[in-house]
Amino acid sequence: MQKIWSIYLSGEIHTDWRERIMQAAQSAGLPMTFHSPVTNHEASDAAGDVLGQAEAGFWRDHQSSKVNCIRTRTQIQGCDVAVIRFGSQYKQWNAAFDAGFCAALGKPYITLHDADIIHPLKEVDASAMGWAQTPEQVVEVLRYVTGTPDAAGCVAAGTST
Amino acid sequence: MQKIWSIYLSGEIHTDWRERIMQAAQSAGLPMTFHSPVTNHEASDAAGDVLGQAEAGFWRDHQSSKVNCIRTRTQIQGCDVAVIRFGSQYKQWNAAFDAGFCAALGKPYITLHDADIIHPLKEVDASAMGWAQTPEQVVEVLRYVTGTPDAAGCVAAGTST
Amino acid sequence: MQKIWSIYLSGEIHTDWRERIMQAAQSAGLPMTFHSPVTNHEASDAAGDVLGQAEAGFWRDHQSSKVNCIRTRTQIQGCDVAVIRFGSQYKQWNAAFDAGFCAALGKPYITLHDADIIHPLKEVDASAMGWAQTPEQVVEVLRYVTGTPDAAGCVAAGTST
Amino acid sequence: MQKIWSIYLSGEIHTDWRERIMQAAQSAGLPMTFHSPVTNHEASDAAGDVLGQAEAGFWRDHQSSKVNCIRTRTQIQGCDVAVIRFGSQYKQWNAAFDAGFCAALGKPYITLHDADIIHPLKEVDASAMGWAQTPEQVVEVLRYVTGTPDAAGCVAAGTST
Amino acid sequence: MQKIWSIYLSGEIHTDWRERIMQAAQSAGLPMTFHSPVTNHEASDAAGDVLGQAEAGFWRDHQSSKVNCIRTRTQIQGCDVAVIRFGSQYKQWNAAFDAGFCAALGKPYITLHDADIIHPLKEVDASAMGWAQTPEQVVEVLRYVTGTPDAAGCVAAGTST
Amino acid sequence: MQKIWSIYLSGEIHTDWRERIMQAAQSAGLPMTFHSPVTNHEASDAAGDVLGQAEAGFWRDHQSSKVNCIRTRTQIQGCDVAVIRFGSQYKQWNAAFDAGFCAALGKPYITLHDADIIHPLKEVDASAMGWAQTPEQVVEVLRYVTGTPDAAGCVAAGTST
Amino acid sequence: MQKIWSIYLSGEIHTDWRERIMQAAQSAGLPMTFHSPVTNHEASDAAGDVLGQAEAGFWRDHQSSKVNCIRTRTQIQGCDVAVIRFGSQYKQWNAAFDAGFCAALGKPYITLHDADIIHPLKEVDASAMGWAQTPEQVVEVLRYVTGTPDAAGCVAAGTST
Amino acid sequence: MQKIWSIYLSGEIHTDWRERIMQAAQSAGLPMTFHSPVTNHEASDAAGDVLGQAEAGFWRDHQSSKVNCIRTRTQIQGCDVAVIRFGSQYKQWNAAFDAGFCAALGKPYITLHDADIIHPLKEVDASAMGWAQTPEQVVEVLRYVTGTPDAAGCVAAGTST
Repeated sequence: MQKIWSIYLSGEIHTDWRERIMQAAQSAGLPMTFHSPVTNHEASDAAGDVLGQAEAGFWRDHQSSKVNCIRTRTQIQGCDVAVIRFGSQYKQWNAAFDAGFCAALGKPYITLHDADIIHPLKEVDASAMGWAQTPEQVVEVLRYVTGTPDAAGCVAAGTST
Repeated sequence: MQKIWSIYLSGEIHTDWRERIMQAAQSAGLPMTFHSPVTNHEASDAAGDVLGQAEAGFWRDHQSSKVNCIRTRTQIQGCDVAVIRFGSQYKQWNAAFDAGFCAALGKPYITLHDADIIHPLKEVDASAMGWAQTPEQVVEVLRYVTGTPDAAGCVAAGTST
Repeated sequence: MQKIWSIYLSGEIHTDWRERIMQAAQSAGLPMTFHSPVTNHEASDAAGDVLGQAEAGFWRDHQSSKVNCIRTRTQIQGCDVAVIRFGSQYKQWNAAFDAGFCAALGKPYITLHDADIIHPLKEVDASAMGWAQTPEQVVEVLRYVTGTPDAAGCVAAGTST
Repeated sequence: MQKIWSIYLSGEIHTDWRERIMQAAQSAGLPMTFHSPVTNHEASDAAGDVLGQAEAGFWRDHQSSKVNCIRTRTQIQGCDVAVIRFGSQYKQWNAAFDAGFCAALGKPYITLHDADIIHPLKEVDASAMGWAQTPEQVVEVLRYVTGTPDAAGCVAAGTST
Repeated sequence: MQKIWSIYLSGEIHTDWRERIMQAAQSAGLPMTFHSPVTNHEASDAAGDVLGQAEAGFWRDHQSSKVNCIRTRTQIQGCDVAVIRFGSQYKQWNAAFDAGFCAALGKPYITLHDADIIHPLKEVDASAMGWAQTPEQVVEVLRYVTGTPDAAGCVAAGTST
Repeated sequence: MQKIWSIYLSGEIHTDWRERIMQAAQSAGLPMTFHSPVTNHEASDAAGDVLGQAEAGFWRDHQSSKVNCIRTRTQIQGCDVAVIRFGSQYKQWNAAFDAGFCAALGKPYITLHDADIIHPLKEVDASAMGWAQTPEQVVEVLRYVTGTPDAAGCVAAGTST
Repeated sequence: MQKIWSIYLSGEIHTDWRERIMQAAQSAGLPMTFHSPVTNHEASDAAGDVLGQAEAGFWRDHQSSKVNCIRTRTQIQGCDVAVIRFGSQYKQWNAAFDAGFCAALGKPYITLHDADIIHPLKEVDASAMGWAQTPEQVVEVLRYVTGTPDAAGCVAAGTST
Repeated sequence: MQKIWSIYLSGEIHTDWRERIMQAAQSAGLPMTFHSPVTNHEASDAAGDVLGQAEAGFWRDHQSSKVNCIRTRTQIQGCDVAVIRFGSQYKQWNAAFDAGFCAALGKPYITLHDADIIHPLKEVDASAMGWAQTPEQVVEVLRYVTGTPDAAGCVAAGTST
């Protein structure tokens, strides 16, 4: 009865960081499932359109964001760990929002961002359990905390059964 | 290990909205189970009679409502999303009660009602994640938030595994 | 250091039930403050207009309801007891919503309604601590639970200091 | 025994929006106190230096952010309403973090930002109780929700005592 | 994916009420598991003796009760519904304690006792979802709330899948 | 700004234990207020009668118990410490219920009972912070935990200000 | 559908107490899984190094401890019972920290330590459900609370199914 | 209506760190009250003796610890910030226990200890908001987070009123 960890991947959608984490986790045999918001930008913006055509602007965004919220809030509340990614050139207030939501719930999260945005992210990092700069670092942390053997067959966490 | 979503269907019992949602969800292959209060009106009114004949009126209703509450409260607390249906000609205070209960718990819910009762439902809608007018809209929202491919095989949420 | 009880008055706005409760409580010297949603119908409907003109209908109602929610949610979370009034001819889904919110928080509430709507209110009453038919009954219950002497100087709760 | 509302002012520190809100609230006689993070940028960055000189960069920021967190978390948990301000040209991930924290706690908040950043703030706005574009709109909302008479002496919320 | 309900059976240990409920539930095909405190009186009193011989009296009882508490608290926190049985001639303060614990957690419970102890149990019954006098009544309520067909194949709750 | 402790006195109503605790606390200058359920037996049984005449028996008791519950639940949730008294010859299931409620909320409580009922109270005592046999012992514990000087002017807790 | 209990093993890492508990539990057929922090001392100290080389001392320890915290907090929040081991010659403040964390969450825990450190552990033991001196005592308690038959085939908890 | 902060001082009792913090805070005019466990060692060990003479050893310690727990748990739950002091030569498992309790509740805390015990305290420090080495550092942090002007009359937090 191995525990399957549930990992929520929040934030930036313009690079392949999610795929790199998921593929590396699969290669390493990590016992986990991954969840994320809808990352198709157009689909996400249109998520609420099926409910009726709100006028473009605030209310259309509002309607779609609430529909997306059904997905993200359920996933955050159900996850064991969140990984929250910030790209240097995007605003990504939704990612910081997710971090604050996790912090209030006591959900551990790891941030993933470059060194050039350390300063504006200091409050988000202050409540994080770790700051990574690459997806590979994230996967190594996840390998370690789940007690999975590394490539050489060594496992730090000897007593879980 | 796909997540199976648990959907609670609250409210109006005089039309076939529940069946339409459940059948459409099944056709679309949505990964979810549906729950609802007892919708047989006579059975619901008599739910507590097995415990002894309270005098007709307030106390008989009280006894039966509490028995029904065992079912509904367990289902609401266990659900991921609630759908709450209001018919234009019914009081359905129980549906509004369920909405308030969901709001206090932080459970996302979608309302389902016609446009002619927008105004009296404005406080209920204010805490909802979406307002739908047809069961088909509800199913489309559920398809989207669960990351299920649509009929054309397209899925917005590409990274869940 | 007498405890001042905080009472939230939710629901119907077309009769003077709030005034009757507040005046009777004052006459009886009950140690309590009363709170309520904004009961001026036009002001309430327009509560969000200052934030910008949403198109009439769903979104204007939505904007105003959320502003009203700042007031009502703060008052409900801070109250000791809620009184929730239903008139026989109104929908008052907001009152039932408040009742559900109270129930989920474990806040005790008393309903105030006529006998002809016992049946549609049975789920709301099932989680209530009492059903009253007149404001005077509500005041008498509040007098009793706060341990205040009655008009004859008798007080049931002799040991509070 | 009038309720004194506690308002937390989060976010952008380069303009005088806090002063405008506080002065207008005082002029209008609103029953409230205001709280905010330390808004002196240099002092905030150096908040942890008294605990020892961490190397500049991540760890100095980390140490200072945690000290600031003692103040902000206490203030957020104690507030009735938060106002969260985003300037168009700043990252302000801490403001979005505070919004997520409020959302998870069920604290109502109002956002204050220009129309040009509606789209990147849609998730933050989705959980807000209102979006304002000027401090004056915020004050008007606060006046309304606290039931304070306006300049003409009119008050919408007639029944609070 | 039928929901399996978890039922906690608390209270009196001198009659076969637990067996009657479990057998009837099994006969009726109710989808549930049953849990209960250790009902072997001698074993329960000696539960802590393995940890060392406390002096007989208060401290031996204390040590054993805490060990029993590991079992009962875990079971109560994990149950969907509790059934709490009071015999007319026993003190069973532990049963009333369990009822209070359930009430504070919002767990629905049913009491099972004869009519001659209605009055001393009025506070316990006030927070219960139902009062039964026989195990058969309890099973019928459980059948109803779980939406299981009765002996004639009729099921009130038609829409759960 | 000395902390005023709020003490809830639950349980047996046939002896003067409440008065002895309150008088001794006043003599010792303990900084505390005391609260208790309505201890006038007839008044308590009739607490709900003002809401209408339920038939005698279960429903009259039910109606009155719920009214009493408004008082007791508010007092328990607001107290710092509860004292729960059991007389040897009474059932007092309400007292054990209050103890369970306190335990689930994490409220510390002290039991007050004679040695001859240690065994049936072992589960209630297992979650208590202390067992006293006399009101004087309770007062001495309250004096100590509040850091109040004893009759000789000695105070153990020297550092509170 | 037997319940599988989740047991968290916290504390001292220099003796084989974890192995003795896990082997004895397996021999006895106890329905449980065991979890523990990473017990490889060097691996644990280096847990955060993959995230970048913090300077040795406070910040390296800080970084690694937070990574370990992802594992331990998830395991504590998911466990049914914790066993917390103190060796007489170690500081093990992390074990006491885990005990405090469990106490605040209401998670039952058992301490495992020798008699010579009873006095310094009195606050930790005060919130524990039992104090054991040997792993065998712990296993016997776990056998009892899970209702597993002993070596002679006797089981105290006869009614669970 | 200045906020008065409540500070809980936990841990080591052999040096004058509490007095140094309290005096410096008073000199600096910090708006706060201080609370602490009973720091008279003999009184603390004997706290439960008034309840009856438990045999010396585990049970006497148990009885006294639970009485002390009434004080400490109430103070921790009511505090805004905790300061937790570890001396290098003491076990102080109670201090680490308090830290874990604070962490689970989300209460911010500051540790106060010398550099030579950084390593064994790394888990406790990982959840702390700051690590100080002197009482003066603690007071300076408290001055800053409460927005109190420093000796030169400068205050970083200019906008609180």
